[in-house]
Amino acid sequence: MGHLLGHHQYGKAEIRVVRLFRDSDPHQIVDYNVSVAVSGDIGETWLSGDNSACLTTDAMKNTVNAFARSQPDAVRQPEEFARVLARHFVETVPQIGTARVSIESYGWDRLAGHPHAFARSGRLVRTCSVVRSSDEEWVTSGLRDLVVLKTTDSEFWGFYTDAYTTLPPTQDRILATAVTAQWWHTPAEGPQDWDASHLAVVDALTETFAGHHSLALQQTLFAMGEAVLDAAKGVAEIRLSMPNKHHFLLDLSAFGLDNPGEVFHADDRPYGLIEGTVRREGAGEPGPAYDPGQAW
Amino acid sequence: MGHLLGHHQYGKAEIRVVRLFRDSDPHQIVDYNVSVAVSGDIGETWLSGDNSACLTTDAMKNTVNAFARSQPDAVRQPEEFARVLARHFVETVPQIGTARVSIESYGWDRLAGHPHAFARSGRLVRTCSVVRSSDEEWVTSGLRDLVVLKTTDSEFWGFYTDAYTTLPPTQDRILATAVTAQWWHTPAEGPQDWDASHLAVVDALTETFAGHHSLALQQTLFAMGEAVLDAAKGVAEIRLSMPNKHHFLLDLSAFGLDNPGEVFHADDRPYGLIEGTVRREGAGEPGPAYDPGQAW
Amino acid sequence: MGHLLGHHQYGKAEIRVVRLFRDSDPHQIVDYNVSVAVSGDIGETWLSGDNSACLTTDAMKNTVNAFARSQPDAVRQPEEFARVLARHFVETVPQIGTARVSIESYGWDRLAGHPHAFARSGRLVRTCSVVRSSDEEWVTSGLRDLVVLKTTDSEFWGFYTDAYTTLPPTQDRILATAVTAQWWHTPAEGPQDWDASHLAVVDALTETFAGHHSLALQQTLFAMGEAVLDAAKGVAEIRLSMPNKHHFLLDLSAFGLDNPGEVFHADDRPYGLIEGTVRREGAGEPGPAYDPGQAW
Amino acid sequence: MGHLLGHHQYGKAEIRVVRLFRDSDPHQIVDYNVSVAVSGDIGETWLSGDNSACLTTDAMKNTVNAFARSQPDAVRQPEEFARVLARHFVETVPQIGTARVSIESYGWDRLAGHPHAFARSGRLVRTCSVVRSSDEEWVTSGLRDLVVLKTTDSEFWGFYTDAYTTLPPTQDRILATAVTAQWWHTPAEGPQDWDASHLAVVDALTETFAGHHSLALQQTLFAMGEAVLDAAKGVAEIRLSMPNKHHFLLDLSAFGLDNPGEVFHADDRPYGLIEGTVRREGAGEPGPAYDPGQAW
Repeated sequence: MGHLLGHHQYGKAEIRVVRLFRDSDPHQIVDYNVSVAVSGDIGETWLSGDNSACLTTDAMKNTVNAFARSQPDAVRQPEEFARVLARHFVETVPQIGTARVSIESYGWDRLAGHPHAFARSGRLVRTCSVVRSSDEEWVTSGLRDLVVLKTTDSEFWGFYTDAYTTLPPTQDRILATAVTAQWWHTPAEGPQDWDASHLAVVDALTETFAGHHSLALQQTLFAMGEAVLDAAKGVAEIRLSMPNKHHFLLDLSAFGLDNPGEVFHADDRPYGLIEGTVRREGAGEPGPAYDPGQAW
Repeated sequence: MGHLLGHHQYGKAEIRVVRLFRDSDPHQIVDYNVSVAVSGDIGETWLSGDNSACLTTDAMKNTVNAFARSQPDAVRQPEEFARVLARHFVETVPQIGTARVSIESYGWDRLAGHPHAFARSGRLVRTCSVVRSSDEEWVTSGLRDLVVLKTTDSEFWGFYTDAYTTLPPTQDRILATAVTAQWWHTPAEGPQDWDASHLAVVDALTETFAGHHSLALQQTLFAMGEAVLDAAKGVAEIRLSMPNKHHFLLDLSAFGLDNPGEVFHADDRPYGLIEGTVRREGAGEPGPAYDPGQAW
Repeated sequence: MGHLLGHHQYGKAEIRVVRLFRDSDPHQIVDYNVSVAVSGDIGETWLSGDNSACLTTDAMKNTVNAFARSQPDAVRQPEEFARVLARHFVETVPQIGTARVSIESYGWDRLAGHPHAFARSGRLVRTCSVVRSSDEEWVTSGLRDLVVLKTTDSEFWGFYTDAYTTLPPTQDRILATAVTAQWWHTPAEGPQDWDASHLAVVDALTETFAGHHSLALQQTLFAMGEAVLDAAKGVAEIRLSMPNKHHFLLDLSAFGLDNPGEVFHADDRPYGLIEGTVRREGAGEPGPAYDPGQAW
Repeated sequence: MGHLLGHHQYGKAEIRVVRLFRDSDPHQIVDYNVSVAVSGDIGETWLSGDNSACLTTDAMKNTVNAFARSQPDAVRQPEEFARVLARHFVETVPQIGTARVSIESYGWDRLAGHPHAFARSGRLVRTCSVVRSSDEEWVTSGLRDLVVLKTTDSEFWGFYTDAYTTLPPTQDRILATAVTAQWWHTPAEGPQDWDASHLAVVDALTETFAGHHSLALQQTLFAMGEAVLDAAKGVAEIRLSMPNKHHFLLDLSAFGLDNPGEVFHADDRPYGLIEGTVRREGAGEPGPAYDPGQAW
């Protein structure tokens, strides 16, 4: 019928590799979930089943595992590990034009006094993504599942009203969200100490959430993004996605009780979803930095 | 500091509305999870906390629920309901420039002989998304979680080898995947009977998966996409994302047993992830049809 | 010091084994998640780390996989496979006094006209559990995630009221639940055709849910249990756990709309949880039939 | 016909209540997921749909929410809140013979320097359960999702071998688990400062996991239980369930690399599951302390 092959990519997703550094004291641990996707001159596999240009996803997995051993310096920081892997695929496999490597990194806290024992830190998942073509590279860092809440210093009033608006304005409410963020590093100025950079961004996000007097979660989001750009000079822009985790004040009057902002129902669904990008003035365009390739 | 607000949007996500048609016999049920996101001339909320242009997400929820009552014809099909909702937000709220409405639809099978009783069909989740600007509209339909498997008629050999390639070629393997798909309807030719169109696409996908002799999951993906374009003339293109759910043949020789393609370990992670777009020749560009707005 | 070791057990959980029957036409597939737990004269591993009585959980996994090959008749039905496995552990490993084998079975529907292709049926997960001591055996069958809903024929009124009761009575509401059930087979009369027995129970459950005029979900639960005992003579008793998946009628009056039982919010949490056991008169005691060993 | 109603219970599950203490500086927050189940002289609802003895689950929800306001001292600690609630149901509703109240408590860490802002601590979920009859009470505390790992000090060898044993012994392996625990407080000696008691138990668990030279996860489990009994004198016994989260050393020899205990695959399924109870000498029997009622 002569239909056309549009964008296409493939790879190995969710390679769960753990790397120990046992020669140091105390031991160090990196705990990653690595996903690889490649595109390029590889369409024949889709069109005809001719696999001669198809690097197996099994080989991608082997590469990730082998590099965890052979690249001890790179593997210590997820951004660096993703960079080395993406470059490898583009430089050694001719038909691969673009490689994107995404990593989730799970934090472990060393148990005090025990050089070889750890407890999983559940406060957030650190993420990163590197997109690499033959001559360009885009690095983003990020996080998800950072759940923060403030018990006051949050208002919401003066909003637009239509025929379906029934929400009463409020001068004091709980504000809670689970932050997902990705930030794109300026190519030339990208930090090499990715761990320090990540810590600085997390600090800026939480400090600003905590200290900002909020008139809307949108406003808090923008303030958080601004603080990140101020704190991390190598960051060109940041994208934030923040669900408004609603806490509804319960009406207890039927039981002879008032409820002065004390007892709330933490609702599951629906939830507001607030999103936004904050950019440094003069920053370039992010190109495919955030693009997962297959666009959804 | 003079940082800039880039792309921004907000809305209410996961509004779980159930609509009965009890005046018919047998009863009918629609079971939706509706998400709304809007953008436009709304930045002041981010920049200053001035909410005078901010339609509350609570009002969006109310609108969805009220329209489920007042628009009985539209609500019967998710694409039509999403179209009516998206148009409402763009046409009645001046500062909203673009609205996107996404719906997950859960299927219920009527229990035979019982006009008012249903069992949830778990075979797939039907999805759709409508993006609406002041003068244009993009409609996609889709599905997720359609898990299919074939016990033979699948080969994988002749692939590219590098230093990390250890996978043996095979002439016969289990092929299994969980299909996620979105397809974009040609604007002028979009079907009005969305239910029939969806059924035709699902049939084309499953029939082709079942009947295709596969040399690679990539090839099967393209064949599935072609079959959809042949079966549904109003579809301009389809995007498919198909994890290769690996089934590893177990080596039982240590126990004195052969294993001629009979006993497999169904592995969780990692998995191959195969993606691709199949386009009708001459189809236009999809624009923001698939774009979730905040791009990840 | 001198603390005591109370109940203890161990095993391998969630062995994901897929077994094909490719010599038949059409092909058949069984798709299991098998968990094994054993107890007995094995305490020394807990007390001192002396593992001489410890059958490795790796060996348990190997046994499950090997038996999937070597026991083709047993593996076709989960209850039979669990029986053969449990007996093996108790009879061949002297220090194992009791073995319990639990299986989740995932259903696949053959795609019409295609002898080797299947789609996963998502309507329910079939379960079973066999507890085996040296001279006794308890077999239960079960299911989970069977979601059913009726749009009418459900009332709830005349209930007890206390100072915290504000729920209005209703003569007509949506009734929806996700059925979890386990039923214990009378030892002497246990069916050998476990598939047919399972189908009969599922039919009795869904038919009764659909046809019963409900005054309370509790009443419907008991009626469902009675129907199972009537339909499956080998079942001694059945335990049912049924969350009341609340569908709240929305008040749309603020928008000038009535809502005569048509538009509902499907809520997530909290939910009522209704449970009960229905026993055949004269049935014996189930002993450890349902007991997961470590009691929670 | 004439089938019998066996054990039966009902209640409201997963009431998500958040309680602020805003009159203190800094603010305090409790974040609970409360489930209530009751049994007693309530069978008529199951048998005939006569609801005159049925306290609605909606009233249970209201009670939990109202008590969060009216019982400010009790609500600060989950065990105390569960005790007050369970006693209320048994004492004020004549037909309720036994009430069990289970609470999951989510921890929040105050953000340094910000009296009103918090980040969710993801290290573990604290749990408790109170079972109350007319004249007795059983209190258990617990936790789940405490993920711990040690990079050395773990061996596993000298185990029993059968025909299906292929695992090589090891003198050095990663040991990782996700601890679930419940411990039963001696009635007369139950601590009133439940928070301090919980901290002491968590410390004993993690310290022992970290410091114990392990010959088997079973042995480590028993040592952890002993340490808890030593640290918390009011605890009569503790039940532990610990999956062995396997980390498989990768064979990288095909790529010219050795792998001296450095690079591992963190596998999902299957996993070993190690369970055990450690009891104080002379402790009484726990009765229904851990029993969820409907026994699975």
